[in-house]
Amino acid sequence: MHELEIQPRFCETDALGHISNTTLPIWLEAARFPFFTETLPAGSLKDWPLIMARIEIDFVQQLFVDDPVLVKTAVSRIGNSSFSVCQEVWQNDRVAAKASTVMVHFDFETQKPTPIPSVIREKLEGFLVE
Amino acid sequence: MHELEIQPRFCETDALGHISNTTLPIWLEAARFPFFTETLPAGSLKDWPLIMARIEIDFVQQLFVDDPVLVKTAVSRIGNSSFSVCQEVWQNDRVAAKASTVMVHFDFETQKPTPIPSVIREKLEGFLVE
Amino acid sequence: MHELEIQPRFCETDALGHISNTTLPIWLEAARFPFFTETLPAGSLKDWPLIMARIEIDFVQQLFVDDPVLVKTAVSRIGNSSFSVCQEVWQNDRVAAKASTVMVHFDFETQKPTPIPSVIREKLEGFLVE
Amino acid sequence: MHELEIQPRFCETDALGHISNTTLPIWLEAARFPFFTETLPAGSLKDWPLIMARIEIDFVQQLFVDDPVLVKTAVSRIGNSSFSVCQEVWQNDRVAAKASTVMVHFDFETQKPTPIPSVIREKLEGFLVE
Repeated sequence: MHELEIQPRFCETDALGHISNTTLPIWLEAARFPFFTETLPAGSLKDWPLIMARIEIDFVQQLFVDDPVLVKTAVSRIGNSSFSVCQEVWQNDRVAAKASTVMVHFDFETQKPTPIPSVIREKLEGFLVE
Repeated sequence: MHELEIQPRFCETDALGHISNTTLPIWLEAARFPFFTETLPAGSLKDWPLIMARIEIDFVQQLFVDDPVLVKTAVSRIGNSSFSVCQEVWQNDRVAAKASTVMVHFDFETQKPTPIPSVIREKLEGFLVE
Repeated sequence: MHELEIQPRFCETDALGHISNTTLPIWLEAARFPFFTETLPAGSLKDWPLIMARIEIDFVQQLFVDDPVLVKTAVSRIGNSSFSVCQEVWQNDRVAAKASTVMVHFDFETQKPTPIPSVIREKLEGFLVE
Repeated sequence: MHELEIQPRFCETDALGHISNTTLPIWLEAARFPFFTETLPAGSLKDWPLIMARIEIDFVQQLFVDDPVLVKTAVSRIGNSSFSVCQEVWQNDRVAAKASTVMVHFDFETQKPTPIPSVIREKLEGFLVE
């Protein structure tokens, strides 16, 4: 799996003293981007023909600001015009959250999903896990 | 369903010109709090014995900064020590996102789930939808 | 002064139990936008020819999540190609923060400041305070 | 000066295609924390007796998501019960923002400023710049 280390920020905590649950989607997005950089054709991030259709996050353990976090990212499914990304957030050798995201290969001009090109499909297959 | 109107903020957009998908969990949390204020016993928000165990969000339509958003919140399931909150995010009379959140009634001292007291259960039942 | 009421969000707190200082610029921006809507020519927010050149914030009192916040916005200076916006953040009838922002009327094509048109200048003058 | 490299996140952009000005205070706080870790006595971040009294930011250049950012942090003034932190945000070998923050050594019990202890003062002096 692709790995990104993130240092939690103090402003990402909330008054309960732990990392706010609203921070997790931000970290998960941050970890998908370098993953995509290695997977998708070169170009500015904002030209990527991908939109998020769905996200699921299971919060397993509380996360705290003091220690670094490791976000692991891989591909769990490759469909015709969409694929699923699975991610785990670890802190202190324990998994704290698990997430699954459905990404749609999207044509912004027609505003419709389009098939994933084979060049991208092959790269995604390199990160496919069971 | 409980309703909260939210005016999108410019910093909640991203370089794709629409509302960032990372903004949705923030709005959903913002809409659950006044809902909980009407449902749960009085007290400071940070004393509430609730933690989030899971969130699912389906992104149905893009959201934009110019028009107000309506977040509708209700209860979809009441279990022994957890319950599920269902939410919809509307803009310009179209549903743009649907979410389901599992909240656990939690004892921070023992760090374990505890049964939902009947006084809370009865209030949650008033917002139960099919 | 223009006034916007904001309900603090739980995720805007931090582990010190109060509103994170990083939240203030977000509220201040949120309050400048409806102010600009009433002041500047109609159009999508992202077409506005304004960039921020400077912000100063004095944190006078801690802010907390439980009570609504009032952000007051006015114009404190109108120059040739820039103007200054002064803002105050109130909670429970006490001022909690004061801010001053320098906005530059900017031409994104030439990437240079341009003089403020008289139609905008006149509207800004309506909100000028000492 | 202390240096922290930050990889901009896509959600930190806004619809103008650049990094939102509301992101800068978040990066500046993120860069102050490892700086304080090396400067202040050991302990959990939330036990630090520091509150922010003032922040000033000059936005010199637009920042973009594609390239890493370097935040440089030092001390510009040490007073009796407060000190000032100066910071610069660089991208692609150009300074994009300059900031100054006034931090107050604060006693949360009495809710009043207290003198900076000599052990902290000596460490801060090691980062003092003109």
